Amino acid sequence: MAANGKMSTGNEMVVLKTSEGDGPQYVKDSPRDHPIVIIGAGDYGRSFAGRLVKTGIRVVIGSRDPERRRPNVPEDVVVTSHSDAISRGKIVVLAVPRDAYSDMAELRSDLTGKIVVDVSNKERLDTEKSNAEYLSEDILDKSLVVKGFNVVSAWSLESGLAGGSKEVPICSDDKEARGEVIQLAKDMGFFPMDYGCLRAARDVEAIPLRLLPGWRFATKLMFGLLAFMSIYVLFQGPLYKYVKSGVTKDIQHFPGKGFNRVLAMLALTLLALVYFPGIIAAFRQLAYGTKYQRFPIWLDTWLKSRKQLGLLALLVASLHAIFSACLMSPEYYYHMYEKGPVIEGRQFYGMMFWRGELLIFTGGLALALMSVLGVTSTPSVQNAMNWREFVFVQSKLGFACLFVGTAHCIVYGSTGFNKMYLYVWYTPPPALLVMLLPCLLILLKLFLLSPCLNSRLMQIRRGWESKPKATPV
Amino acid sequence: MAANGKMSTGNEMVVLKTSEGDGPQYVKDSPRDHPIVIIGAGDYGRSFAGRLVKTGIRVVIGSRDPERRRPNVPEDVVVTSHSDAISRGKIVVLAVPRDAYSDMAELRSDLTGKIVVDVSNKERLDTEKSNAEYLSEDILDKSLVVKGFNVVSAWSLESGLAGGSKEVPICSDDKEARGEVIQLAKDMGFFPMDYGCLRAARDVEAIPLRLLPGWRFATKLMFGLLAFMSIYVLFQGPLYKYVKSGVTKDIQHFPGKGFNRVLAMLALTLLALVYFPGIIAAFRQLAYGTKYQRFPIWLDTWLKSRKQLGLLALLVASLHAIFSACLMSPEYYYHMYEKGPVIEGRQFYGMMFWRGELLIFTGGLALALMSVLGVTSTPSVQNAMNWREFVFVQSKLGFACLFVGTAHCIVYGSTGFNKMYLYVWYTPPPALLVMLLPCLLILLKLFLLSPCLNSRLMQIRRGWESKPKATPV
Amino acid sequence: MAANGKMSTGNEMVVLKTSEGDGPQYVKDSPRDHPIVIIGAGDYGRSFAGRLVKTGIRVVIGSRDPERRRPNVPEDVVVTSHSDAISRGKIVVLAVPRDAYSDMAELRSDLTGKIVVDVSNKERLDTEKSNAEYLSEDILDKSLVVKGFNVVSAWSLESGLAGGSKEVPICSDDKEARGEVIQLAKDMGFFPMDYGCLRAARDVEAIPLRLLPGWRFATKLMFGLLAFMSIYVLFQGPLYKYVKSGVTKDIQHFPGKGFNRVLAMLALTLLALVYFPGIIAAFRQLAYGTKYQRFPIWLDTWLKSRKQLGLLALLVASLHAIFSACLMSPEYYYHMYEKGPVIEGRQFYGMMFWRGELLIFTGGLALALMSVLGVTSTPSVQNAMNWREFVFVQSKLGFACLFVGTAHCIVYGSTGFNKMYLYVWYTPPPALLVMLLPCLLILLKLFLLSPCLNSRLMQIRRGWESKPKATPV
Repeated sequence: MAANGKMSTGNEMVVLKTSEGDGPQYVKDSPRDHPIVIIGAGDYGRSFAGRLVKTGIRVVIGSRDPERRRPNVPEDVVVTSHSDAISRGKIVVLAVPRDAYSDMAELRSDLTGKIVVDVSNKERLDTEKSNAEYLSEDILDKSLVVKGFNVVSAWSLESGLAGGSKEVPICSDDKEARGEVIQLAKDMGFFPMDYGCLRAARDVEAIPLRLLPGWRFATKLMFGLLAFMSIYVLFQGPLYKYVKSGVTKDIQHFPGKGFNRVLAMLALTLLALVYFPGIIAAFRQLAYGTKYQRFPIWLDTWLKSRKQLGLLALLVASLHAIFSACLMSPEYYYHMYEKGPVIEGRQFYGMMFWRGELLIFTGGLALALMSVLGVTSTPSVQNAMNWREFVFVQSKLGFACLFVGTAHCIVYGSTGFNKMYLYVWYTPPPALLVMLLPCLLILLKLFLLSPCLNSRLMQIRRGWESKPKATPV
Repeated sequence: MAANGKMSTGNEMVVLKTSEGDGPQYVKDSPRDHPIVIIGAGDYGRSFAGRLVKTGIRVVIGSRDPERRRPNVPEDVVVTSHSDAISRGKIVVLAVPRDAYSDMAELRSDLTGKIVVDVSNKERLDTEKSNAEYLSEDILDKSLVVKGFNVVSAWSLESGLAGGSKEVPICSDDKEARGEVIQLAKDMGFFPMDYGCLRAARDVEAIPLRLLPGWRFATKLMFGLLAFMSIYVLFQGPLYKYVKSGVTKDIQHFPGKGFNRVLAMLALTLLALVYFPGIIAAFRQLAYGTKYQRFPIWLDTWLKSRKQLGLLALLVASLHAIFSACLMSPEYYYHMYEKGPVIEGRQFYGMMFWRGELLIFTGGLALALMSVLGVTSTPSVQNAMNWREFVFVQSKLGFACLFVGTAHCIVYGSTGFNKMYLYVWYTPPPALLVMLLPCLLILLKLFLLSPCLNSRLMQIRRGWESKPKATPV
Repeated sequence: MAANGKMSTGNEMVVLKTSEGDGPQYVKDSPRDHPIVIIGAGDYGRSFAGRLVKTGIRVVIGSRDPERRRPNVPEDVVVTSHSDAISRGKIVVLAVPRDAYSDMAELRSDLTGKIVVDVSNKERLDTEKSNAEYLSEDILDKSLVVKGFNVVSAWSLESGLAGGSKEVPICSDDKEARGEVIQLAKDMGFFPMDYGCLRAARDVEAIPLRLLPGWRFATKLMFGLLAFMSIYVLFQGPLYKYVKSGVTKDIQHFPGKGFNRVLAMLALTLLALVYFPGIIAAFRQLAYGTKYQRFPIWLDTWLKSRKQLGLLALLVASLHAIFSACLMSPEYYYHMYEKGPVIEGRQFYGMMFWRGELLIFTGGLALALMSVLGVTSTPSVQNAMNWREFVFVQSKLGFACLFVGTAHCIVYGSTGFNKMYLYVWYTPPPALLVMLLPCLLILLKLFLLSPCLNSRLMQIRRGWESKPKATPV
């Protein structure tokens, strides 16, 4: 009992002992004085049992077929029948598939008054009530049903704490039962989150069905831009030439040279889109004279996708670097190389001239800065930085990166901006088109950094309002 | 006492106070009411003391030479003689080297009834009993010996929580003593693991002597393949030419061109080996009609090494990308470039033709996908994903990567598959040899995705069995 | 009350219940039986409230303007007037800006005897007393002021545990109040650090104002070396030629070819500087015959900056790889390519000869090894390794990397070391200059690995001293 007592939070159980341990003892019958009962000896049940045993908690497994030998059942764990297992404890973890819940009706009386933990997941999102509500209302209406642990996979039960402890939402209509399971989760090394009443199980059961929602906006934007830019580059160059003079050569060079141009445009645009919403938000705050005016949903989504946009920009920029390094030769980028002799009608080239070397210099520098931004946005590095450091890296270094990247683009395109034959079909050449957004952004940022606007913005962000107590819409 | 009380789990110590604090107090003499005693003022002892003090726990250090000034002893820590220190507390951390354990015999009576924590490590694995058992049986047989904290280095005691809290195995034959030390570890910010009786100290002491066991299979496989492929590429090309016509040129090009070919083959093969065992496991489950049949050890090891194989594939593929970018020129890969004029008997080339650009396109895409797989397999990123997201990235994106990588290989080799002079010494050219495994894998995967097999597999993985209750071998 | 009891550590509150719950109850009036009071409904206050609610703790917010609707106030949180809110709880979190502290004087009597948590930050470091001391001494002298949570931003309150739990320093002159807040921090998923008395608030308030102090030494060193090497390469090559013969061509090639040389020199030197201080420390320990002699500050700083130096070396080496891949052609590195025909006075080249391929081989290998070193120095990967694995990777693999990197440098420079015309202005060519340090280092390391010195060093590092009990300076 002493070892269990260690796991207990204490105040629900009082042990009065003299130092010799022979004095009077008033013991409240706490759920954690008993072993944890796990119904179901499948993968999940066994993994759950393993984690509990490692935590120092006793476990009884209830199985339909207790005699059967199973691999991976931890030592010291008793495997017995459902009813016997349930009779030994107060907290019962229901590790059976959702389909088998109706079979649990036969355990209804055994489970009366017990805390029943529903760890199940749905196979897809639907509008029906949650598994936990179904269990609580239709099957085990005399038990204290608690939803929890459904976000924890069997794999992560086994693999321990790598990567930091995991958030585990827990909810129940019974506060005391919820508190017991919260403490259990804490003892198992998880970080329980109190989600309140069992109605919240609908949200909790939706969590494991999520598929990278934070990445949706950024990836859609990226693929949209990729499609647009591919078409633009294809039409503005190779297809124009084909239409005008029937030359197919440039179309054949699209997977390498053309796509590399698309990658360059995409990387710079994605990087600009990381810093654009912050500028919009600043101007909005200046216009409304308050920071308490809520942002429209599109701006809010955009602001929350900045990290993802930045990481995609880094991925695309790295690809652009590899493509460029593979293609870098006078045959591909002749306007970056010094002209050498003409031999039998063929122009040969020498080294790059200064513009070409500057191109590599600025490109390399931008990629290096972007890599630093990428590394500092991983959770564990970010966690080691304070707010000031985070802002310094993400804002100062980030704008430096945007600046160098834009310079890279200008160095590349500047030989062509004055060549009118590149403005075909009334469209500007890609390098000109793509530098407009970052240049605009840099100008707006400089404008915001002007002392007058900057001090007002700082004021607003500290809570000052131009029209106090305005009720937000 | 109040501050210590905060750290206590509560039920072993009962304090009855009125709200004024002047009422009657029944206090059980709990070990944590006393300071923690550390025997040994060396690096480890001082680091341990520092961490305890930061946690808000009082510390007394016992030293053979208490007068000596030492750097890094935290303020508020009393340094005194061994006996005096031990008399002040109930939990004694023995921070002396294993060699000095025999000297501890003189403290045997002082340590009677105390909880003694053995934090020592072995220098090498041997078959003798553990340090903790030796201490408990031969030196301090009247103390409650607990093994613990040996996996925590002085450095990680000082550097705090960066990277998440660490798992600390703890074991002892005395349940109450074990519980006390488990709680102490918890308070210090570690995640204690209950390993049961002191016999388990043999396993616990083996942990710090481990040298990357999870990487052994994958690195051995990689170096084996590297050796085989190097020899194959060397023999099939340069050495064949030397034997047939005495040309040494190709041997001189082995460190760059030849080795780059080896890197390409190795990367694709390693990636295929990531997905191979999953396919085998699926067919095995279909054949046996159950998922409860245990996998043979070789398959289990292979399945557990998939992450390592994938990371090695990424490393090798990145190297291949850099090598390729450095060598990419008509002199090296003439069959990827358009022919230009022949001047004075020398063939000149122009841009790449479409196959060459496709080569770069597919290679870049495969590397980008593999980088995403690599990033998502770091512990902290993985911890932030749910199971569905993890499966999506590692399985869907992973197979996409294998598919694009195989396409990259086919684009490269396809110009040569029909050239019979490449099939020297009855062996296929390397590019053909290396694409066999991933192609087979893709076919098997498509076969498994056929509705009939796929639904049966899903059924089996949910626990269905074709011959229920079969006793596994 | 029961749900709150779960959060309590127990011994400050005693509940005696029979198992029916109708027995006598002696309840000490613990601060955590009451809701946590937050004064201030700004961003920080609301984020703090949100985290508390998720943790399962009741919250009351006190606001000057309780009627006003605010976004993001969690459900179940009562917003009321300052006085009313304070009257409901015992722990009061002061979430108002530092400027508004003087206004808090009017709450002085309300806050008498309450635990007041000061979460504020300074805008800049000054020599005045800390905000917490000001609050405790000048404004709320009848309250128990505790400094805490100032290192936690509103953003990290909202974003949860990603990247592991955060260290939160807490200090107060009242031990019991400090203990309460330590427990609160623990319950919220943070890792509280006991900093002792309120005087320590000066250190605690300095933490969020830190700007990457661990990176200062390494970045300064890097930029210093960058400047020196840039000037050296510029003078030794392009400027010398300009002065001697008026040729400006090499100056134009500085951003690409020249800077790439600087990057190569910088990467190798930074890598050597990672392993240099360890060698110095070893010789120092051998000379003094003890490990207890403290290192001088410069050596200590250098030793602590090794990780940062290594990561910068990796960044610079990656840049060097990309630059090299972009420039790799006979026009840039003619001495690495086989001579082809001379056509109309222009020399053409073929493939690389073996030295060139070896250059790529060694460079690629060094970069791969350095990448492994970089990945293993991220907090979460490092946390998963034991001490032996860490030493193996960082020391063995690290020296292998230095060795291969030095070989890369020798392969590059060896064609020129004997060409006296490269020794202009009495200075050696850059490739010769830069290989001196790593070569010296490798020799010293080999010297240290000689059996006699190595065994003595191992002895010293286990605590042996040649002159025992020497008092360190």
